[in-house]
Amino acid sequence: MVNKQLVVGIDIGGTNTVFGFVDREGNILAEDRLKTSHYDEAAVYVAALYEKIMVTRQKIQGDIEIIGFGIGAPMGNINKGTIEYSANLPWKGIIPLADLFKQYTNLPVAVTNDANAAAVGEMIYGGAKNMKNFVVITLGTGLGSGFVIDGKLLYGHDGFAGELGHTAIRPGPSNRECDCGRKGCLETYVSATGLKRTLLKIMADSIEPSELRKYSFDELDAELIHEAAKRGDHLAKRAFLHTGRMLGFKLADVVAHTNPEAIFLFGGLALAKELIFEPAREFMEENLLHIYKGKVKLLPSELSTQNAAVLGASSLIWSLKES
Amino acid sequence: MVNKQLVVGIDIGGTNTVFGFVDREGNILAEDRLKTSHYDEAAVYVAALYEKIMVTRQKIQGDIEIIGFGIGAPMGNINKGTIEYSANLPWKGIIPLADLFKQYTNLPVAVTNDANAAAVGEMIYGGAKNMKNFVVITLGTGLGSGFVIDGKLLYGHDGFAGELGHTAIRPGPSNRECDCGRKGCLETYVSATGLKRTLLKIMADSIEPSELRKYSFDELDAELIHEAAKRGDHLAKRAFLHTGRMLGFKLADVVAHTNPEAIFLFGGLALAKELIFEPAREFMEENLLHIYKGKVKLLPSELSTQNAAVLGASSLIWSLKES
Repeated sequence: MVNKQLVVGIDIGGTNTVFGFVDREGNILAEDRLKTSHYDEAAVYVAALYEKIMVTRQKIQGDIEIIGFGIGAPMGNINKGTIEYSANLPWKGIIPLADLFKQYTNLPVAVTNDANAAAVGEMIYGGAKNMKNFVVITLGTGLGSGFVIDGKLLYGHDGFAGELGHTAIRPGPSNRECDCGRKGCLETYVSATGLKRTLLKIMADSIEPSELRKYSFDELDAELIHEAAKRGDHLAKRAFLHTGRMLGFKLADVVAHTNPEAIFLFGGLALAKELIFEPAREFMEENLLHIYKGKVKLLPSELSTQNAAVLGASSLIWSLKES
Repeated sequence: MVNKQLVVGIDIGGTNTVFGFVDREGNILAEDRLKTSHYDEAAVYVAALYEKIMVTRQKIQGDIEIIGFGIGAPMGNINKGTIEYSANLPWKGIIPLADLFKQYTNLPVAVTNDANAAAVGEMIYGGAKNMKNFVVITLGTGLGSGFVIDGKLLYGHDGFAGELGHTAIRPGPSNRECDCGRKGCLETYVSATGLKRTLLKIMADSIEPSELRKYSFDELDAELIHEAAKRGDHLAKRAFLHTGRMLGFKLADVVAHTNPEAIFLFGGLALAKELIFEPAREFMEENLLHIYKGKVKLLPSELSTQNAAVLGASSLIWSLKES
C-alpha cells in the first residue's frame, strides 16, 4: 500500500504561525498554530515549531508520508531560503530559515513570501490550474504580488521579483508616505489601508454626508467601508472607485511588462467584488496598449481566504515535485 | 570536415531590410539589403528577400551550413511567427511571416520584435553573456524593451511582453500624445523624440539663451541636442536630465516587477553616456525599494549600434539551439 503524501504548509505572520498538513487536492488533514511573537530567537522558534508539527502529525489517521515543508513568510527569499530584514517579525537581519529547518529534516524546505505562495497556490489548487503566465495580487494591509512566467514562479536575480506594492503612482515626491520610507507607493493607495486613506481624503474634500464620518481613522477598516458602500454611501463608493482606478492604472503597466493571461485579486479588498473589480477593469482597459485590449482577464482568486496562506505555502513543494 | 554554421539575421525596417550571415561569435561574413517599402505584398517581398539571401550566400568562401533564419521586425510575434498590425511596415493586419519563409526552407525561422532581438543579442554576443535575468531598453525614435528571465526571452501569454515604451508616467490624461493613440506613455518622454519634446517644453518655460533656439522641431534631433549639451548648453543639459530622470523613475518599476541583475540601454540616446545614465541611475536608485538599492546595474549595451539589429535577429536561432 502506498502512503498518502502530504506537505506541511506553514504561514509565518508577525503574531501567529499557522501550519497544516495538506494533500495534493488542497485538503488540510490537520492544523495548528504557534505564537510567532513569543520567540525572540529564530532558532528557538524553529525548534518549537518543528516539535509542534510533529505532535500534530500524530493526529492524522492512516499511513502518511511527509514530502516537504513549504513556508510563506514576509520577505521570504526562495533563492536562499532566508527571511531578510522583515519589519513584521521578531527577528532582525537575515534569518537562515531553511537551514534552521534542515537541522531537523532532510526533506525539501522552500521559503517564499506570502504573495508568491498565493500565486503558486492559485496554480496548484485554484483558478490558474491551466495557466502558464499570470499574476496574483494580494490586497491586505499592504499590496503583494506574485508572477508566474511559463509555469514557474518569477524570483528574479536576487529572489525579490514582484514587489508591485512599491511601484510608484507618479514621479517625484507624492503626498502619501509609505511604511517603506518612500512616498507615493501603490500600496499607499491600493490596499485596505490605502482605501481608508483615500476615504479620509475624500471626506476632507467633500461636504457630502456619510455614515463613516462618525468613525476615527483607527476604527475604520475595509469591511466597514465595504458595508457602507453596499448601503449606498456615496463617499464609501467613491473611495472604492478611486482605489480601483489606481489599481487598474498600474495593472496596465503590469501587462506591458509581462503580458499575462490573467491577473487574480486575492484578499480582503477583493471580497468587495465589483466595487473594486469594475473600476480596476475599466481603468486597466483604458490604459492598455491596443495589442492587449480585451485580452487580459481580471479575476477573483479561487483560493478561500481562510486557508490560502497555508495552501499557498504547501503548494511550493508540490510545484517543485511536478516541475 | 565540419561545415561552418551560420545564421541568417534579418532586420526588417519600414524603409530597408538588412540581412547578414552571422557566425556564433557575432562575425558577419556577408550582408546585403532590400527596400522593404518597394513591396506592397508580403508574399512577393519574402520571395524577393529569400532570393537575395541565396545570391548573397554565394559570396561566402568555404563550406558553410545555414542553420536558421532569425528575424527582427516591428510587432513581430515569436509565439506565432507573425507581424501583427505594424504601423511602420507596408503590410497591414496579421502577416504570417514565418509561414511565408517556410515555403522556401525547412530550417527554423524565428520572428520577434527589434527590442527582444536586441535582448537575446546582448545575451549571445554582448554584455549579458553570463546573465540569466536582465532587461534591454532600446532608445530610438521610440522606446522598446526585451526581458530575459531565467536565461529565456519573456514572451508572455500573447507574445507581446515588454512594451515598456507604453507604460504610463502618471494616472489620468497627461499632456503628451503618443503614436499609439493614448497619452502620457513613457516613450513620449524617453526616446529621441521625447528628448526633443522635452527640450521644446523647457525652451517654452525658460528665458535662458540656447544655441538650439535657432532650430525648428523638424530640424532638431538627439545628436544635435547631445552636441549642444557637450558644449555646455544649459537647456540641452536640462532636457537630458529630465529625460534621464523619467527613465530612472520607470526603471525602478521595472526592478519591482522582475528584479533583474542588470538593465542595458541601447541605441542613439544611450550614446549620450553619462548625460542620460547619471540622472537615470540617480532616479532609479532614489525610487527603488530598499531591498533593491545598489544591486541593479545600469549599463550601456555592448552590441555595436551598427550591426546590432542583424546580430540580435541572428541570436534568436543560436539561443533556440542552445536552450
